[in-house]
Amino acid sequence: MPQTPNFLVINGPNLNRLGRRDPKLYGSTTLADVEKALRGRAGELGAAVTFFQSNHEGAIVDFIQENAGAASGVIINAGALTQVGYSILDALLDSGLPVVEVHISNIHAREEFRRHSVIAPFARGQIAGLGWRGYLFALEYLASETGQAGKASRTR
Amino acid sequence: MPQTPNFLVINGPNLNRLGRRDPKLYGSTTLADVEKALRGRAGELGAAVTFFQSNHEGAIVDFIQENAGAASGVIINAGALTQVGYSILDALLDSGLPVVEVHISNIHAREEFRRHSVIAPFARGQIAGLGWRGYLFALEYLASETGQAGKASRTR
Amino acid sequence: MPQTPNFLVINGPNLNRLGRRDPKLYGSTTLADVEKALRGRAGELGAAVTFFQSNHEGAIVDFIQENAGAASGVIINAGALTQVGYSILDALLDSGLPVVEVHISNIHAREEFRRHSVIAPFARGQIAGLGWRGYLFALEYLASETGQAGKASRTR
Amino acid sequence: MPQTPNFLVINGPNLNRLGRRDPKLYGSTTLADVEKALRGRAGELGAAVTFFQSNHEGAIVDFIQENAGAASGVIINAGALTQVGYSILDALLDSGLPVVEVHISNIHAREEFRRHSVIAPFARGQIAGLGWRGYLFALEYLASETGQAGKASRTR
Amino acid sequence: MPQTPNFLVINGPNLNRLGRRDPKLYGSTTLADVEKALRGRAGELGAAVTFFQSNHEGAIVDFIQENAGAASGVIINAGALTQVGYSILDALLDSGLPVVEVHISNIHAREEFRRHSVIAPFARGQIAGLGWRGYLFALEYLASETGQAGKASRTR
Amino acid sequence: MPQTPNFLVINGPNLNRLGRRDPKLYGSTTLADVEKALRGRAGELGAAVTFFQSNHEGAIVDFIQENAGAASGVIINAGALTQVGYSILDALLDSGLPVVEVHISNIHAREEFRRHSVIAPFARGQIAGLGWRGYLFALEYLASETGQAGKASRTR
Amino acid sequence: MPQTPNFLVINGPNLNRLGRRDPKLYGSTTLADVEKALRGRAGELGAAVTFFQSNHEGAIVDFIQENAGAASGVIINAGALTQVGYSILDALLDSGLPVVEVHISNIHAREEFRRHSVIAPFARGQIAGLGWRGYLFALEYLASETGQAGKASRTR
Amino acid sequence: MPQTPNFLVINGPNLNRLGRRDPKLYGSTTLADVEKALRGRAGELGAAVTFFQSNHEGAIVDFIQENAGAASGVIINAGALTQVGYSILDALLDSGLPVVEVHISNIHAREEFRRHSVIAPFARGQIAGLGWRGYLFALEYLASETGQAGKASRTR
Amino acid sequence: MPQTPNFLVINGPNLNRLGRRDPKLYGSTTLADVEKALRGRAGELGAAVTFFQSNHEGAIVDFIQENAGAASGVIINAGALTQVGYSILDALLDSGLPVVEVHISNIHAREEFRRHSVIAPFARGQIAGLGWRGYLFALEYLASETGQAGKASRTR
Amino acid sequence: MPQTPNFLVINGPNLNRLGRRDPKLYGSTTLADVEKALRGRAGELGAAVTFFQSNHEGAIVDFIQENAGAASGVIINAGALTQVGYSILDALLDSGLPVVEVHISNIHAREEFRRHSVIAPFARGQIAGLGWRGYLFALEYLASETGQAGKASRTR
Amino acid sequence: MPQTPNFLVINGPNLNRLGRRDPKLYGSTTLADVEKALRGRAGELGAAVTFFQSNHEGAIVDFIQENAGAASGVIINAGALTQVGYSILDALLDSGLPVVEVHISNIHAREEFRRHSVIAPFARGQIAGLGWRGYLFALEYLASETGQAGKASRTR
Amino acid sequence: MPQTPNFLVINGPNLNRLGRRDPKLYGSTTLADVEKALRGRAGELGAAVTFFQSNHEGAIVDFIQENAGAASGVIINAGALTQVGYSILDALLDSGLPVVEVHISNIHAREEFRRHSVIAPFARGQIAGLGWRGYLFALEYLASETGQAGKASRTR
Repeated sequence: MPQTPNFLVINGPNLNRLGRRDPKLYGSTTLADVEKALRGRAGELGAAVTFFQSNHEGAIVDFIQENAGAASGVIINAGALTQVGYSILDALLDSGLPVVEVHISNIHAREEFRRHSVIAPFARGQIAGLGWRGYLFALEYLASETGQAGKASRTR
Repeated sequence: MPQTPNFLVINGPNLNRLGRRDPKLYGSTTLADVEKALRGRAGELGAAVTFFQSNHEGAIVDFIQENAGAASGVIINAGALTQVGYSILDALLDSGLPVVEVHISNIHAREEFRRHSVIAPFARGQIAGLGWRGYLFALEYLASETGQAGKASRTR
Repeated sequence: MPQTPNFLVINGPNLNRLGRRDPKLYGSTTLADVEKALRGRAGELGAAVTFFQSNHEGAIVDFIQENAGAASGVIINAGALTQVGYSILDALLDSGLPVVEVHISNIHAREEFRRHSVIAPFARGQIAGLGWRGYLFALEYLASETGQAGKASRTR
Repeated sequence: MPQTPNFLVINGPNLNRLGRRDPKLYGSTTLADVEKALRGRAGELGAAVTFFQSNHEGAIVDFIQENAGAASGVIINAGALTQVGYSILDALLDSGLPVVEVHISNIHAREEFRRHSVIAPFARGQIAGLGWRGYLFALEYLASETGQAGKASRTR
Repeated sequence: MPQTPNFLVINGPNLNRLGRRDPKLYGSTTLADVEKALRGRAGELGAAVTFFQSNHEGAIVDFIQENAGAASGVIINAGALTQVGYSILDALLDSGLPVVEVHISNIHAREEFRRHSVIAPFARGQIAGLGWRGYLFALEYLASETGQAGKASRTR
Repeated sequence: MPQTPNFLVINGPNLNRLGRRDPKLYGSTTLADVEKALRGRAGELGAAVTFFQSNHEGAIVDFIQENAGAASGVIINAGALTQVGYSILDALLDSGLPVVEVHISNIHAREEFRRHSVIAPFARGQIAGLGWRGYLFALEYLASETGQAGKASRTR
Repeated sequence: MPQTPNFLVINGPNLNRLGRRDPKLYGSTTLADVEKALRGRAGELGAAVTFFQSNHEGAIVDFIQENAGAASGVIINAGALTQVGYSILDALLDSGLPVVEVHISNIHAREEFRRHSVIAPFARGQIAGLGWRGYLFALEYLASETGQAGKASRTR
Repeated sequence: MPQTPNFLVINGPNLNRLGRRDPKLYGSTTLADVEKALRGRAGELGAAVTFFQSNHEGAIVDFIQENAGAASGVIINAGALTQVGYSILDALLDSGLPVVEVHISNIHAREEFRRHSVIAPFARGQIAGLGWRGYLFALEYLASETGQAGKASRTR
Repeated sequence: MPQTPNFLVINGPNLNRLGRRDPKLYGSTTLADVEKALRGRAGELGAAVTFFQSNHEGAIVDFIQENAGAASGVIINAGALTQVGYSILDALLDSGLPVVEVHISNIHAREEFRRHSVIAPFARGQIAGLGWRGYLFALEYLASETGQAGKASRTR
Repeated sequence: MPQTPNFLVINGPNLNRLGRRDPKLYGSTTLADVEKALRGRAGELGAAVTFFQSNHEGAIVDFIQENAGAASGVIINAGALTQVGYSILDALLDSGLPVVEVHISNIHAREEFRRHSVIAPFARGQIAGLGWRGYLFALEYLASETGQAGKASRTR
Repeated sequence: MPQTPNFLVINGPNLNRLGRRDPKLYGSTTLADVEKALRGRAGELGAAVTFFQSNHEGAIVDFIQENAGAASGVIINAGALTQVGYSILDALLDSGLPVVEVHISNIHAREEFRRHSVIAPFARGQIAGLGWRGYLFALEYLASETGQAGKASRTR
Repeated sequence: MPQTPNFLVINGPNLNRLGRRDPKLYGSTTLADVEKALRGRAGELGAAVTFFQSNHEGAIVDFIQENAGAASGVIINAGALTQVGYSILDALLDSGLPVVEVHISNIHAREEFRRHSVIAPFARGQIAGLGWRGYLFALEYLASETGQAGKASRTR
């Protein structure tokens, strides 16, 4: 693990549209705003973040494989791949990194098909429905866990 | 809404045992520790918290009915009533308050029967698996939402 | 069976909030109004009613056990315990009394989880969606059944 | 809405056999008895009823289409079409009239296939298991609703 | 029960097409051929048969209601109403007559939706896949049962 | 096959109300308007159409049996019989004609029970949600198929 | 196929107890009575029957393998192996013989687990609920089929 | 573990009615009789028992939390909370004590909803259908296990 | 019933391996040890036991048929036939004897497929998870029931 | 909305093989043929079409995001992504454009897994089984809708 | 483990018919051919094989119990017992030997009921659809595993 | 078919990590090792192999489309796309090539979601749990099938 912990922040399909996408559901904050806020907070916490967004599942798998070695944790909002992204799940499991899943809207209050995540059972936890602050809380959590005990083992 | 926002923090059955209950799963932080941390942070945010724990579902319903009028939001960890606490759900719906559900352990990674919450579809969101910090993040969220836009309407 | 038939009218969790609870769904009639109307009509029918409301399942079981001996029938709106109140069901079965289940709103037109009653299969019948008048109709039914044939045996 | 409110009372397949059909389950009251009782009570309430029974689903649909315009509400016991009568449901929805579903026996206590009604989710409510009085209670309900607020909008 | 036992032989929708309908599945025997064969065999057995075919479920219900009083048993092939003919089922139950269900083709070897009969659980038995002879076997069965024990009670 | 191809256009229960029925869902075009438009377009295509609407399933089965011999294809909107019209399905299968199923509204976007068609798996195809034009497209399709290859065999 | 057609009549576990086993459900006819009646009728039809009963699934498989070569058809009542006798099914399929499944009681009216047969989908047909005469009807069917068309191919 | 092993004997809702409750199902032995018999046998075994009955789930959770520290095992008949008592389950798991579940009647032979226990998968075992002796056998088991190996670890 | 009551103790497939089979799950007691303990206790109770173990379902059916006449009850651990032993179930039902089902390990805490017993709904009761003592408790129960009331009728 | 309406025509995985892919199921028309036919018809209607095919889900999401701003509607055949393409669905929803789903073969008549579309519930409608003409009908529909009412709002 | 590793090759019901059984599905190779090929290859690998086939589940359990002690692994094609052979599964688990499951035909492409194996989750692996060579591949695998690492522990 | 048969060996997401990925589950052999072993064995068999690995589903579809024409068969380990790779399935079906599915670990012994393959029902067969040798066995199978009968038709 590096001296300065680095957290991968991964956003899946259509999250590049954040802020322009149904504001009632997702708010008006853009992904650039989220990135800026996270970088600021990471700096205060003595950590770094590596941002990545893609509409391609394969590209997300590539990214995880290439960046996991130098990372201390993963914050992921897989978008609509949350339901079917088994390949992303395998890449995350393979990385051995602690993962926190974030959803901007409350997936438990939306269409039935959005409620089931293939990633959550293998993550440290899930934050859903708290808007863009969900990413911030995930960062706080990972930073404090990393600070306390180094690179933590997976919950199960 | 009161001048100083007050948030109800409700814990259900067996959470009075926190800290002494299976530490691998729930950590060693006690409920008193959580209360202290939340009171401290609430003070910094210009807010107050009202704590309540009970092993009795009826007592939790009573508490919500009696305290909802003077409250700005609810943080609830219903424990094992998460799966069957329809009466608590009705009391929360009746209160019209924004609700954030918190689980210390990652319920999505435990026994199948723990994954389904009857409350989550009607809450603002859910935080699961991030330990005692989940309560803190819920407080941060409700405080910022209340500060920005007064008593917010439910997401759906 | 007593000379003057007495009917137990039991209301479960959150029904003490009737009249102040989502008026679009439940109307503006309070539980006190319902009690008054039922007492009036019972008097005309030469019968009596014993009212009880509690947010505690155990208290409802206690009430049934203590009052069944001197009662001729039960009108019950178990609120959200309708779905999970197996203990109430057992107390009702144990009492041997004819039971009519009442719901103010049309549970068949609401969330899926509200449609299934654990009590209805063992009751004389169910009235749903006819507002506070449902209690009145249940009283009329039980009074006429009791007047005609004494303490009737359960339908099945 | 007409000056004198008129309620359609519709009975589906096999209900013409009422009184001669399994008396333990359905009682000895005939459909003519029910009609007479309802006409008497309707007169007292300043209302009228139009009776109809058929073993043919198509004929029931025809009847609703032809009589809905001059009616204020519908009382329907669709018999065994309760489970599969989607065409009747569409005719009722198309009419825009408030509907109360009646069942003489407690369908919740009989064979599993009888418990699910395709009509109930779109009706004002359902009365089951209270014998022929169920029709009377439905009439009382519709009359009082019509008297209070004119032709009421559907619950959902 | 009449001196000469009379059996109702009821055929549902599309069975008037027998012999012209997919011969590989249903054979080339027409319904008239079946009727002739049954009448011949009934004569030898000292019994009579009343034939009826309709594409209208309501008409079959009417027929059962009108003819059950003078009948000793029912042989029924409800065609595609086998799956949804709850109204026919109710009419058969109401008649109190012993019923044998016949299917020309082996419904257990066809599309899944054809395998479930709503009538069979309440019939004496079911014959499927033995072609037009299935009617003959049903007649033999009912005649022998009637001869032995008069109008037999239903199996369950 | 006749010289001038003739297509049966069958509408099931409640479609006689088209234009007066929930306009937001079904539009303001009446069934007479649809018939006129189809007759006009059929004339241009050198074809004829035979219209039929009934609220009675048995009558639709009768119609198919009586008209299939002189027809080249079927356009059917079975209304609410789409879900349970096994008898209509059998009549269509028996006719051996190519069938196109039409729905004015998008049944895939409505209540769950409307999504499953018992006819579609045995039809050439299904058009749903394109309003009254769906009938027109079905006619275009059948006319071009008939013109190309005579009376086409069923897809499966 | 042999000159004199021979039919295997196979009875599974506990059918050796026929006549002494729950007479209300199975009657008082013994398996020896059934055998005698079938031998008599087979003689009249110019056919022979080979009887076999075993409580051992493997023994029934052995019997089918050893006797199929000289047989023209199979009548089987597999008893409680009807639900799980996949090995018997495979042996029957392997034999290529036409099979008729017989059940003395109406399996469609008994416990749910008895309704599903693994054999029926691959048999010519099934007779259930007609008592010991079911075997006789199966014999009549197979004899007539064999007389007409030699060793018939399976229905599907 | 104390010198004299002490076993908690917990009875849930409606079991205070034992002896007066449907004697065909539950027998005429009262809970006081059971307590007396267990105390007698415990004395012979050099052990003690602490009895508790409540109709309130919360009270049972309180009792377990307060008494687990000085106990060597739990015998529990949760009554109708067997199906939904997740809070009791959590209290039992938290206690770390060996648990034996007892049911007086054979829950596997009653209504479907009574067959599933949320406690049994986490207990040492379950005794059902052996009447009041089930408690006695549970005591014998726990006493012998405790005597042999001290406070035994849970089976899984 | 014989003067000295005799109980059949039946063990199914692989239980002859008891003691050598996964000791963590099944303990180190052998089937011979169990037999010896039961014989000893039976002698004290004035009863006898007939032991039988087989890996062949058919052999168990044979054993029940041959020994039921002189027996007063059955203790059975059907091993892996618990899930599919319908033939054993039929033989047990046919015997009319009271049955107690025993499982050494807690089947409710093992793989899902082991939890469902086809025998339990028709037995007096089930003991699971209490090790070899389960057999002993079953013997105590049957002996006391037989001593009290002779050959008891089945619970349902 | 642009002066000349432009429609996106999107084809998913393997549709580049159209014409060479199983001709019995998909016909011999190539995707280039479809494009040519659509361009021709669009010209006549005063509209334009933008064609796109990809085997990559991510590329389809990119295309929708980049082209939705200048488009009036979408015609999509997502191929095998119809069942799992939640990311495409989100991109379509985000675009706010009216969507018509097209399938060349009748997906309702093929393997079960092909029948469920994740897109259809959110589209204007679906055309299935009408071959390449399905695209043409979709274009006709969108052109007429756009011409009548500008950029139409989604049906639900 | 013996010096020369010995592998049990077990074939279940109807596999003695291999070669004469539906050749399109199973090929024309007989079980004797398979045995010969395996013996030859085993010799080359310095191993031995013990062949066994039976139509009796109990006989297979006996065989495993008697031969497991001197064996290094098991190759099993349980035929139709694959779906219900829990007793065989228990015997295999009890043996502690590595197991490879073989199916001649591709069970994943046949009837639904053949796809689920009760053995596979507890085996090293499964080979299906590769004809008689599947046995050969299983032998190669077990021989190489045994040669490398002695008697390997089970995968899970 | 080419003179020298060429087999496509396709590996899906995360299989490029083979050897470095959870060695307990997948072993320490790398994908390059597998390629080398397969090339060596293919040379001995007079065949060639074309290797391909990608984390992108679309890229795998592209590869199959571009290489199928000159190939004789496909060996595929689709990784986590096994569960959702309908697009890959369609490309394989379109190719008409014989396919063998390989999984290194025993998917039948892992998480439930890994057991179902969308490809297997349409493949020649599946090898699971035999480690990297699974690829070798698949190659042996395809080579021998190709050598015997040229380019074989699909099994179903």
